[in-house]
Amino acid sequence: MRTTDLDTPALLCDLDVLDANLSLMADRCRSLDIALRPHTKSHKIPEIAHLQIAHGAKGITCQKLGEAEAMAAGGLDDIFIAYNIVGSAKTERLARLAKSRKIRVAVDSAVTAEGISAAAVELGASVEIIVELDTGSHRCGVQSPADAAELAKRIVALPGLQFMGVMTYPSRETARPFIDETVDALSASGIECKVISGGGTGSEATSKALGCTETRSGSYVWEGGTRVGQTSDLSPERCPVRLLCTVVSTSVPGQAVLDAGKKALTAMSDSPFGLIIEQPAAKIRGMSVEHGHVDISECPAEIHVGDRLSVIPKHGGMTTNLHDTMYGVRGETVETIWKVAGRGKSQ
Amino acid sequence: MRTTDLDTPALLCDLDVLDANLSLMADRCRSLDIALRPHTKSHKIPEIAHLQIAHGAKGITCQKLGEAEAMAAGGLDDIFIAYNIVGSAKTERLARLAKSRKIRVAVDSAVTAEGISAAAVELGASVEIIVELDTGSHRCGVQSPADAAELAKRIVALPGLQFMGVMTYPSRETARPFIDETVDALSASGIECKVISGGGTGSEATSKALGCTETRSGSYVWEGGTRVGQTSDLSPERCPVRLLCTVVSTSVPGQAVLDAGKKALTAMSDSPFGLIIEQPAAKIRGMSVEHGHVDISECPAEIHVGDRLSVIPKHGGMTTNLHDTMYGVRGETVETIWKVAGRGKSQ
Repeated sequence: MRTTDLDTPALLCDLDVLDANLSLMADRCRSLDIALRPHTKSHKIPEIAHLQIAHGAKGITCQKLGEAEAMAAGGLDDIFIAYNIVGSAKTERLARLAKSRKIRVAVDSAVTAEGISAAAVELGASVEIIVELDTGSHRCGVQSPADAAELAKRIVALPGLQFMGVMTYPSRETARPFIDETVDALSASGIECKVISGGGTGSEATSKALGCTETRSGSYVWEGGTRVGQTSDLSPERCPVRLLCTVVSTSVPGQAVLDAGKKALTAMSDSPFGLIIEQPAAKIRGMSVEHGHVDISECPAEIHVGDRLSVIPKHGGMTTNLHDTMYGVRGETVETIWKVAGRGKSQ
Repeated sequence: MRTTDLDTPALLCDLDVLDANLSLMADRCRSLDIALRPHTKSHKIPEIAHLQIAHGAKGITCQKLGEAEAMAAGGLDDIFIAYNIVGSAKTERLARLAKSRKIRVAVDSAVTAEGISAAAVELGASVEIIVELDTGSHRCGVQSPADAAELAKRIVALPGLQFMGVMTYPSRETARPFIDETVDALSASGIECKVISGGGTGSEATSKALGCTETRSGSYVWEGGTRVGQTSDLSPERCPVRLLCTVVSTSVPGQAVLDAGKKALTAMSDSPFGLIIEQPAAKIRGMSVEHGHVDISECPAEIHVGDRLSVIPKHGGMTTNLHDTMYGVRGETVETIWKVAGRGKSQ
């Protein structure tokens, strides 16, 4: 199958670029001597997670229980859900998953840990627990080393749970006192902290310096604008995601309209909304729900209705979440068709 | 089934509020004596389109061919796709759809009309054609009444096509000269303009004043922030969409964290990202990909981990597009479960 056989908008992944990104991160983590537990929320595709494992990743990370179930169904094991799992419907599913897979989950409150414990006991499962530390993000996480130690003690006392360690996100130098004091407080209570989990693509060396045993780097697979910061840094050599689009109108002078807008390319970003590989001087300046408005006034080439253009989105993870299928391509050959198995698994 | 049986995040539709919105718009269009051809891109759910037809709508509008196929598969007929359909893969699908359904489509170029004609001839189909006018939106549409007449003449000459009229979006008073001159130019060429299609919830009277024969109003079903403009205008009495969420963390003082972020509630909008019905003083001030950050510092009630809260999103259409399922509820009773059949049908 060839890319010319695909209708648009179609979500493509350049397999050569993906392979290079996977190797680069795996090598970086090996040279830093830190385990890589990639965050699969960026792609939600079990086959890519298997590629990450083949490159030496030690287990995977998910953000939602439904994503973890999709990854488990796709044959993955040793899954860390870096998210508070709350409510009996979810804790039962979590415990069931833990009956056949090695499952680890983050908590930041005793009530959450108690809910997981109750389900684990009910089903005869064992769930590994990580305490999330708020080292400055102010999203989730216990607020002090003393709170972390108190919660860890509660976890150790609860049946069906195995306390494993702590996590931070994103890894920042300023987190060091919080982490060090937490490890000391745990040690003083006779609790071993086997895992210190850091996160965020680009922060691997910081994680290592903080004493982390693993990094949950995720967006490196796509290396979109969330990492590189500016659209000018988007490049076909680093960013494997392309949304293949068709020009559907050139009626307005100086403008071409693509058949992809906020519902196919994501509403999340500012102008220009991605890089057009074939015509980098053409700038996506506006986004309707289903139209992409491209300013072609500075574009040396003519653009016609029916032309197909490849857009590198600024945020690969958000774009992937809008599609059911991703096509793995090398040159113009479609080598593989992936189901975005974790898409929409927000529960 | 009760709403308490649903896990979160779950996308709900308050059926009483939906019914009221459907009646209100149907009555408004009847009193204006303008046909209502609702734009179903807002909901993408065939069952809701059937409710709109039952309220007196004359056919429906879709934005993408894939949405139209989903609506046709759900039993709808008389479908206007207000979008340039480009490329042989799509024109073949369009012509096949037109073999068993009444299908109308917008074009703004001869090359697009010629492609549709070729496919229609090949399959022995007849496709109704509307010429899109750019009356000020500068997205798609011919640029002048003379261009409209020239394109209409080309369409009349092409086999397999039936020229029906023109469309504008959104309907604005300033569009009157463009529309009037186009109708005159068509008439001078002996071409009848049976349809003048206007669009945009809230512009029905303007459409009527412009001489439109129909309005493609769509967002009225949800009446979210895109229409009412400000979050303070979101109200449970007018806005039927609710994303049922669970509080998963209250570790950070003054903050609660919901289990829904940009991938469940949409990245498109500014703070506050919706209205929390049960606690309107709690403001969703931040959005991670999978977390909603709620400022509860001004909230009189205590909020605990495990609490369930109903969020009215600012943009019902974008939120619906992120979910596979919508639950139709009346009070706490789940009366119906809808598949969001048009979700992801961006081709």
